[in-house]
Amino acid sequence: MMQQILIENINPSVYQGEYPARAIVGDIVTISCDIVCHGSYVLDAQVRYRHIRERNWRSAPLELVENDAWEGKIKVTRAGMYVFIIEAWIDMVSTHFRDAKKWLDAGEDISTDVLAIRNTLVSSIKGQTGPLITGLISEIEHSPSDAIATFDPKSPAGMEARRLQEKKSLSESRQFNISVDPLIAGYASWYELFPRSQGSDLKSPGRFRDCIQRLPDIKEMGFNVLYLTPIFPIGETNRVGKNGSKTAKPGDPGSPWAIGNSHGGHKAVNPDLGSMKDLNDLLSAARSIGMDVALDMAFQCSPDHPYVRDHPEWFNHRPDGSIRYAENPPKKYYDIYPINFDIPQPMPLWRELRSVFEFWINRGIKIFRVDNPHTKPLDFWNWCLTSLKRKHPDTVFLAEAFTRPKLMYGLSKAGFNESYTYFTWRNYDYEIREYISELTSSPLNYYFRPMFFVNTPDILPYVLQHGGRNAFIFRAVLAATLSPLWGIYSGYELCENTPIPDREEYLNSEKYEIRKRDWKAPGNIRDIIAKLNEIRNSFDAFRGRMDVTFLGSSNPNILFYLRRNRSTGSSAFVAVNINPFEEHTARLSIPSGIAEGISGNVQWYKDVFLGTRISLPGREFNLTLTPGRKSAAILIPEV
Amino acid sequence: MMQQILIENINPSVYQGEYPARAIVGDIVTISCDIVCHGSYVLDAQVRYRHIRERNWRSAPLELVENDAWEGKIKVTRAGMYVFIIEAWIDMVSTHFRDAKKWLDAGEDISTDVLAIRNTLVSSIKGQTGPLITGLISEIEHSPSDAIATFDPKSPAGMEARRLQEKKSLSESRQFNISVDPLIAGYASWYELFPRSQGSDLKSPGRFRDCIQRLPDIKEMGFNVLYLTPIFPIGETNRVGKNGSKTAKPGDPGSPWAIGNSHGGHKAVNPDLGSMKDLNDLLSAARSIGMDVALDMAFQCSPDHPYVRDHPEWFNHRPDGSIRYAENPPKKYYDIYPINFDIPQPMPLWRELRSVFEFWINRGIKIFRVDNPHTKPLDFWNWCLTSLKRKHPDTVFLAEAFTRPKLMYGLSKAGFNESYTYFTWRNYDYEIREYISELTSSPLNYYFRPMFFVNTPDILPYVLQHGGRNAFIFRAVLAATLSPLWGIYSGYELCENTPIPDREEYLNSEKYEIRKRDWKAPGNIRDIIAKLNEIRNSFDAFRGRMDVTFLGSSNPNILFYLRRNRSTGSSAFVAVNINPFEEHTARLSIPSGIAEGISGNVQWYKDVFLGTRISLPGREFNLTLTPGRKSAAILIPEV
Repeated sequence: MMQQILIENINPSVYQGEYPARAIVGDIVTISCDIVCHGSYVLDAQVRYRHIRERNWRSAPLELVENDAWEGKIKVTRAGMYVFIIEAWIDMVSTHFRDAKKWLDAGEDISTDVLAIRNTLVSSIKGQTGPLITGLISEIEHSPSDAIATFDPKSPAGMEARRLQEKKSLSESRQFNISVDPLIAGYASWYELFPRSQGSDLKSPGRFRDCIQRLPDIKEMGFNVLYLTPIFPIGETNRVGKNGSKTAKPGDPGSPWAIGNSHGGHKAVNPDLGSMKDLNDLLSAARSIGMDVALDMAFQCSPDHPYVRDHPEWFNHRPDGSIRYAENPPKKYYDIYPINFDIPQPMPLWRELRSVFEFWINRGIKIFRVDNPHTKPLDFWNWCLTSLKRKHPDTVFLAEAFTRPKLMYGLSKAGFNESYTYFTWRNYDYEIREYISELTSSPLNYYFRPMFFVNTPDILPYVLQHGGRNAFIFRAVLAATLSPLWGIYSGYELCENTPIPDREEYLNSEKYEIRKRDWKAPGNIRDIIAKLNEIRNSFDAFRGRMDVTFLGSSNPNILFYLRRNRSTGSSAFVAVNINPFEEHTARLSIPSGIAEGISGNVQWYKDVFLGTRISLPGREFNLTLTPGRKSAAILIPEV
Repeated sequence: MMQQILIENINPSVYQGEYPARAIVGDIVTISCDIVCHGSYVLDAQVRYRHIRERNWRSAPLELVENDAWEGKIKVTRAGMYVFIIEAWIDMVSTHFRDAKKWLDAGEDISTDVLAIRNTLVSSIKGQTGPLITGLISEIEHSPSDAIATFDPKSPAGMEARRLQEKKSLSESRQFNISVDPLIAGYASWYELFPRSQGSDLKSPGRFRDCIQRLPDIKEMGFNVLYLTPIFPIGETNRVGKNGSKTAKPGDPGSPWAIGNSHGGHKAVNPDLGSMKDLNDLLSAARSIGMDVALDMAFQCSPDHPYVRDHPEWFNHRPDGSIRYAENPPKKYYDIYPINFDIPQPMPLWRELRSVFEFWINRGIKIFRVDNPHTKPLDFWNWCLTSLKRKHPDTVFLAEAFTRPKLMYGLSKAGFNESYTYFTWRNYDYEIREYISELTSSPLNYYFRPMFFVNTPDILPYVLQHGGRNAFIFRAVLAATLSPLWGIYSGYELCENTPIPDREEYLNSEKYEIRKRDWKAPGNIRDIIAKLNEIRNSFDAFRGRMDVTFLGSSNPNILFYLRRNRSTGSSAFVAVNINPFEEHTARLSIPSGIAEGISGNVQWYKDVFLGTRISLPGREFNLTLTPGRKSAAILIPEV
């Protein structure tokens, strides 16, 4: 049955509240809706909300913006799930006063209206204290014309009368959810490494201790999340050799994604890396310099994983009873058994996998990069992540899914806080514009939080292969300035780009061998990466959710965009030459009124990327960008 | 709890199924959705649907279109409410065959796959007849490679195997509604008249009998709905005189919207118009020439209405006990008491008002134009219209609401089949484009059906006042070709346009006096209106829901658009000079591939408005349109 007042188009929401929207701790969330009622009553509305762990509801007023659209703000101060409901009602006090004023102004008799006002006010104070309302009643009784002419619904007496009155025709929306994530889920710079490749001793594998040694180096580049590729014991059976060859040579370390051996499975560490205590030391060291550590979690097993022995029912069997390898016809991965979720009794499996996360959460890990979640059922993730977050709302799950877009979005609906994207494959101006426009469209932007990795151990994009150092620079500028979440896989700072011919993959991939490097080798772009992270940390415009407006550029080789943070009102303008081979010039313009604080008077901008200061009085200007260090301009308006 | 397969973005739907979408009897409705599942299974899906009066569910298959989007079609053959549910599941038969084929092509061992296929097929036929599936099993047992290489999921055996298998991971959408309206709600040309102004006897008021005499005339112009302004007894107290003057002179007939006197209220006819039998004769006469009759229903009362005596509690009272007039501060309408819906016990009032509709429905009226519905509660309309339509699904309710857009849309959500619009106030090219683009946007186009009246007794738009006959012509062309529902208020064909100075209102309005006319007076545009209705009736493009694409025109005085009917694949191109004063020329172009059936080869078009035939081989052409009879071109491609 329809309510008398319609409350609709409620935001933030995902499919009418079917899935939670997302926010970050400390966010001031704008709640908006349409409120529609017959006639021409004055309406009032509020949003009632609470954290699900709190018993009491809070409330915040909504205000009419225009054309039956209303808006209010709530502050979410605690990680976890918030619920909100919108209430709207007819404000009879204001309606009567407004109508009486019209009759008064028209010189008509107002006795009916005075009576209506008095009755409304009197019935309001029944059994409630309201000193101001009493004064208002006395005024309406003794000098009604004055009372009506001077009534102000926002005056203390007006507020009290409106607050105490009966909420006539009170209508309520259904309940909507906002999943509030910790700060690190909204804004972060990730650095991915293989622990075994750290350390200066070229002979022996790197250990957690070596990772501790590398921390200052990574911190110097401005990263705040250290992401470790899988740290679990690695299988011996069918271990893969260099470049993924089917048979490993003695001493080959194997793929860290082939998880489990006699030392244990997903709840153990590879002894080559150190002990659980060593890992704990790494976590402490990272924490002491303000960094978080993310674990890579791949739900798949080497043939030597304890699950294979203890729970053969969790795997796919051949007619002869043997277990099937991971397959992606016509490819097979002989070192990996995928877990079979299509089993009659999946709950013991589901519970065990959830307990893996719990194991690491209890050891201080809060961030998980989940490998290939799109090959596991969405209802499993929804059950697993929802229940984990109820207990541990400060956890963060990053979906490493490169698959069909709607499935990637489905994983975020199921509970992933953030997701890998197609960013590495978006190179031309129209591709980048189109993709960013999709990512920032509603309702996607309410629940899907994109992470822009410039490379991964699996992906060495063609643009980096062919464009070399210049490409490494401008791709970093794009990722760091377009997205609040960006990351590199180690080696990026060294511009490593030797591919397997005609493939977007690294030759001699670290997935299958140990690679020790000179982290300060000539040609590195450490200073540029550090500068980008420093700019991100220094200017609000780059924090807050992805909010990008592309601006006019006369040359498709130069992308020009406005990056904005609406909650702080900060803006930055970024121009990037996305052609790694040629210098380009474009005519760019900053439209008037494009952003808060950018009035017609702003003419000085600081180029924080190159450290210059420029004057743009006409706000239409030519800009020349040269591949390399001068391939971008990051302009902060001086307001 | 999330299901394993997500079924989302389901259309037609209004706010995730919160309100029914609308269709017309006989429509083939396209059902679309996204279906998202982990992994890379082959999925299958269907829509199950039924009319709420039918017990059995029907089903129609959905097919994958692209990118996880699916589509199917259902035919709605009966007025009333349909419900539909989408089901999706994993098609293991097809999944196994596809994977086996990949291994086969890669030269790998397929014994595991063969076993999986066999097991799936065998478990499918348990207790079911399936001669084809038995053959398939035998084939997979004896020559598995051939069976796999040649399997076709769309072959009879493939279809049977897929149909009989268990629907693995079966997921279901929630239930969605489609309100199926009678044909007349989707496509109609309305003619509005005051019965008392009909007839050739200048001395006495027109009667229903005179309306019968006028029918051939109206039919000749091609209209198929005769809309009668209120036919109820008119109040005597405070009757309004000519031009709305506060005191009527003896013999002034009063406003038909001041309803009720000693002869009765909303369930009686004004004796001056004739008897209930005379009305019935008019209905029969109209029906016999294929016309419907619409009644004007205004829920308000003259002070003499029986309700005022019998149900004083349904009105607003002053402190002295007298009843308040209709008011719109600072305006008062002394001949009208509005009904007060803000009463403690509204159900008796609600039931009585619903019984008014029932009274007329039982006397053969199926179409109601409802006056000012936006001043009555939305929950009343929702209750009233939903329950009426459950019993009388062939009724049509047109909302005469000129108010805030979201309230107009709210009335359609509450149950109105169609609605008045802002069309009369949209005159310039950008205004018309913008408004049509709003009306054809989703989800609005799923539930809000716009009626384009070119004038009403209340509205004589400035464009008609100033533009004269030329404006009457081009505005008729716009309404008749843009919207499947259009109408005129009588006098339009005579280009009557004398206003109250500086107001968009008629001088000597028929609302307050009787106006007999020479319906064939010189300067009339009867033939043009007849031509427009004939074109609408002859070409499918103008039937079906509003579907307009604006095409490039080099001159803002000439609007150029494609009107389309997607269910029949018909198209028409319309060019209109919207400047009533000047001849204009525009360069127009028909983009290639713009509509079905319009390939690059079409070069001959019939201008059905002017009766010529033109060749447009380049499909880019100059067109000159002259105000008046040659102000438009309506081009039908000769395919």
